[in-house]
Amino acid sequence: MRKVYMDNGATTQVDEQVLEAMLPFYRELFGNPSSLHSFGREVKKALEEAREKAALAINARPEEIYFTSGGTEADNLAVQGVARALKKKGNHIITSAVEHHAVLDVCKAMEEEGFKVTFLPVDEYGMVSPEAFREAVTEETILASIMLANNEVGTLQPIEEISAITREKGIVLHTDAVQAIGNIPVDVGQLGVDLLSLAAHKFNGPKGVGALYVRRGTQVNKVTYGGGQEKKVRPGTENIPGIVGLGKAIELATADVPGKAAHLTFLRDKLIQGLMKIGDVKLNGHPEKRLPGNANLSFAFVEGESLLLSLDMKGVAASSGSACTSGSLEPSHVLLAMGMPHETAHGSLRFSLGKYNTEEDVDYVLEVLPEIVERLRSMSPVARRGKQG
Amino acid sequence: MRKVYMDNGATTQVDEQVLEAMLPFYRELFGNPSSLHSFGREVKKALEEAREKAALAINARPEEIYFTSGGTEADNLAVQGVARALKKKGNHIITSAVEHHAVLDVCKAMEEEGFKVTFLPVDEYGMVSPEAFREAVTEETILASIMLANNEVGTLQPIEEISAITREKGIVLHTDAVQAIGNIPVDVGQLGVDLLSLAAHKFNGPKGVGALYVRRGTQVNKVTYGGGQEKKVRPGTENIPGIVGLGKAIELATADVPGKAAHLTFLRDKLIQGLMKIGDVKLNGHPEKRLPGNANLSFAFVEGESLLLSLDMKGVAASSGSACTSGSLEPSHVLLAMGMPHETAHGSLRFSLGKYNTEEDVDYVLEVLPEIVERLRSMSPVARRGKQG
Repeated sequence: MRKVYMDNGATTQVDEQVLEAMLPFYRELFGNPSSLHSFGREVKKALEEAREKAALAINARPEEIYFTSGGTEADNLAVQGVARALKKKGNHIITSAVEHHAVLDVCKAMEEEGFKVTFLPVDEYGMVSPEAFREAVTEETILASIMLANNEVGTLQPIEEISAITREKGIVLHTDAVQAIGNIPVDVGQLGVDLLSLAAHKFNGPKGVGALYVRRGTQVNKVTYGGGQEKKVRPGTENIPGIVGLGKAIELATADVPGKAAHLTFLRDKLIQGLMKIGDVKLNGHPEKRLPGNANLSFAFVEGESLLLSLDMKGVAASSGSACTSGSLEPSHVLLAMGMPHETAHGSLRFSLGKYNTEEDVDYVLEVLPEIVERLRSMSPVARRGKQG
Repeated sequence: MRKVYMDNGATTQVDEQVLEAMLPFYRELFGNPSSLHSFGREVKKALEEAREKAALAINARPEEIYFTSGGTEADNLAVQGVARALKKKGNHIITSAVEHHAVLDVCKAMEEEGFKVTFLPVDEYGMVSPEAFREAVTEETILASIMLANNEVGTLQPIEEISAITREKGIVLHTDAVQAIGNIPVDVGQLGVDLLSLAAHKFNGPKGVGALYVRRGTQVNKVTYGGGQEKKVRPGTENIPGIVGLGKAIELATADVPGKAAHLTFLRDKLIQGLMKIGDVKLNGHPEKRLPGNANLSFAFVEGESLLLSLDMKGVAASSGSACTSGSLEPSHVLLAMGMPHETAHGSLRFSLGKYNTEEDVDYVLEVLPEIVERLRSMSPVARRGKQG
């Protein structure tokens, strides 16, 4: 059976070039970069080269890159670290209702520590309004965390407009760019952000490694304590093979963003247009300002989970919402924040395309999914009532 | 030139069998274990198999194993997580003066959160006294963190005697077993601990992955927030290749601990006996109750750093203190806590042997080090004064 992987928002396949770059660091170059001897020095060099690659990819300075165990840890370090560092300056944080749980749940934890958090609503496309952001700012606002691209519906947030406000008001701005790297241009100077999170496994790098960009001069408290690694901000023996893999992966992923985006946009649009023909199908998220590889669709009268299972039996991998919350019976907090009714949210699917997807993959989904939807709808009393009514 | 790696306390070479077990998870088995489709299910299975292997190796239940990004994160999760979870019960923590910084510095951070911490002194061998431990217990004591084996001098702590006290008093006991796994038997039932940290890269597994054992029923607050992974205690997409590597590595490392220990003890004792012949050399740490692969020695009248650099030029990798603090000019907090004068602490070297070391490695060090010490002492005015005096 054909296997079609369209869940690149959950994770991606490691590029073979990335793995090849990593392997020597599992074999002969196994030293600890903190060690003073030759085994340590040679991997320390690789660590700093990876840092340079990560910096170059987002137009940062190498000393502004801190390696972490992934996007979640980067988000936690950013929000917990900055909030606590600036506690004496103010106690108000602004975020949005559609953030990844790695930001949303940290913000809720910060509320328990005494911070006040504004969770900005979004419009029907999942977008934050810069005007609403400006209105939310108070004298106490020290930190804002607004994602660059939504992981579920792909909507791109107006970060440049928001950073114009945070810079004017002296607020530290963090963005979760985990879904953005490699798919849209990411330039910390142009975005105007002070902190930015990324995760290697979302751009054909390995799992278990990410990074936090911290603009020079931005105060960040530690979240974990220990050795002096990562300029005493993030302790623990560095995951050298992973970090080398991140460096290679981000170099490859950002080498030709317009080319990759054009490829993904072509596939995505063909997929969306084909699926819309089924009828009673709605595209979720912004029609244009969205990730090139994201197609999030609601299929009326069917359960997303039934669709997923039927697709899986045909060899197609997609998702309902984000992988991090799958298994939970709650409908997506993102779709609900966009004003979608519970039952529609339950009938939603995310196809997230990646660089290894082909037009044949799209054709295959367009071949199998209409039949699946028709069959499931034919079994659904709601669908029959809907069609008769 | 011969290369001799005797810094296995800093990190170890990944076993080729471990790497082979990991590779499929970088290639075809690249799914996110939280995904509901077949790409996710097949790696979810591998995740749970690794958890079973880790549990089996330390006589725990699989559901008591939480994967982390390494030993430092495990230590942080244990100390921060338990202290905050039990804050209402009491505010006193007991630890020792010779812990790794991943415990020591977390405890200092907990002091800033309002906890009281007792840093127990140690004897000349670096050992904590169970009697002193008992005396330190107050009505407020909720948590103790005492390492199983010291990373610098190799001294084994009397954890069974300490756990008899913590169990009697209803205190939660954590132990950092990062240096112990694979080198001495580690059985959480026999040790009587409630939490135990381990790190794969210390037992010929990959860097960037560790685990925390949490006895069933022990409350641990989160340190980072996000998705529902690791039973909602440790969020973030699981580092599947790393976790699979940890599982394979701990299986191999604990398959024949007596055999490995005998090999290491033979090499270590030959090394120690040979180096003692140099004269004005002292073994640090407990003469018997120590890690089989650890030889920490003080060479009078010379600087440890000079010894290291000279050894490095001969292809030999050793360390002064722990890798995590190398580069710092401070003498080892462990040696100072053992009552060693600053200048002696500065002249100390750690040789940490691993499973790939051979008798030829030891012979080579015994061939090159006496000459190095003699040369450095001949240049040292202190040494000349010492010999004349």
